[in-house]
Amino acid sequence: MRDIVIIGHKAMTSGDFPLNDLPGSAGRMDILCRCVSSALFLSFGMRRDVNVHLLLLGEPDPGKIVRFDGMTLRYLNPDERSSGSLIQKALKKEASEYEVRSTPGVWVRRGDLKTLLEQFKGRTLLYLREDGADIKEVAREITDPVFILGDHTGVTEEEEVEILGAGAKIISVGPISLHSNHCITLIHNELDRLEAEVEPAVESECEADRVEN
Amino acid sequence: MRDIVIIGHKAMTSGDFPLNDLPGSAGRMDILCRCVSSALFLSFGMRRDVNVHLLLLGEPDPGKIVRFDGMTLRYLNPDERSSGSLIQKALKKEASEYEVRSTPGVWVRRGDLKTLLEQFKGRTLLYLREDGADIKEVAREITDPVFILGDHTGVTEEEEVEILGAGAKIISVGPISLHSNHCITLIHNELDRLEAEVEPAVESECEADRVEN
Repeated sequence: MRDIVIIGHKAMTSGDFPLNDLPGSAGRMDILCRCVSSALFLSFGMRRDVNVHLLLLGEPDPGKIVRFDGMTLRYLNPDERSSGSLIQKALKKEASEYEVRSTPGVWVRRGDLKTLLEQFKGRTLLYLREDGADIKEVAREITDPVFILGDHTGVTEEEEVEILGAGAKIISVGPISLHSNHCITLIHNELDRLEAEVEPAVESECEADRVEN
Repeated sequence: MRDIVIIGHKAMTSGDFPLNDLPGSAGRMDILCRCVSSALFLSFGMRRDVNVHLLLLGEPDPGKIVRFDGMTLRYLNPDERSSGSLIQKALKKEASEYEVRSTPGVWVRRGDLKTLLEQFKGRTLLYLREDGADIKEVAREITDPVFILGDHTGVTEEEEVEILGAGAKIISVGPISLHSNHCITLIHNELDRLEAEVEPAVESECEADRVEN
């Protein structure tokens, strides 16, 4: 299982944002939408072993977690508007501390960074930061990982203290500063390559953008 | 210089498509928009050494090439709608065999795959296909590359004959079949890593999604 947490500091926490303005009035929701797509899509289907946790901290009701569960997910297409629409549906649900399903494979609840760090106790926490250990060097030691990424503003000092306090290791994905969705693609590729060494994949690589969903 | 060609077999060739339906009535224009973003964005700015060539082969006027020139590009944001809007503006221009500028750094002309292959004579052509040589194995031999990728339908047999006839080598980016925009991220990372060995980058990696533009 690969879990991926993305912190959206400005991302709206009510479902009445316009799908035509994900970067603006939805509080850079476009970043989270691209992360969902990078985390979950293969050419010919979904990554069923992935959970994406969007931590939404924007107005008007900060502190919600929208979870995309690759195993049961339906109705997601790779475009930003599609994930934006599923996030919107989730945010229209009444949220409590217990998860509620909004559409197949999409869940919402109240929570903050602490909620997620508590949930992932015992897992390998990996916090993406520019000066971290190169994933290529450490990938073989990674088991049962939870990756934590920031948005366009990164991660606040307070959040970083919490993340490192929970035992996270700092990793990086290359020599140049990249968008979070690009980092997710690079993380997956590194782990895919290692898994393929153990168990060569039947289907192989790139060519296209075919989608089953 | 890195040039990246993406073939959009269904992508509309007039500018009157709705930005709210890039995957549908615009002919999977969303794929090309994501490729533009992956090809050009860094966390803190643009890849100025990249040209993206979108080969649009859909109705109503097939055979147009929209070029994004990283060096002079302006007004591009990382969301799909932003690149969709610049493509739309380009397609509203009268296109001839000579390039016309629609907005700073975006150019349009008539042309097909042959036009591009002629233009890139003498360059290192690299065609992304699932069974190609692993980019990790061949990256050190790559100089002055032109990468050629398909869309959700891949590349047709006829196109493949043309591409290979022009001397392209077949490469791949990993063990699992991925979307074209994800492949572009992986290509860049491999070349970035090699360049950093020669000339260590001042700014480094991931953390965030910060955008100057």
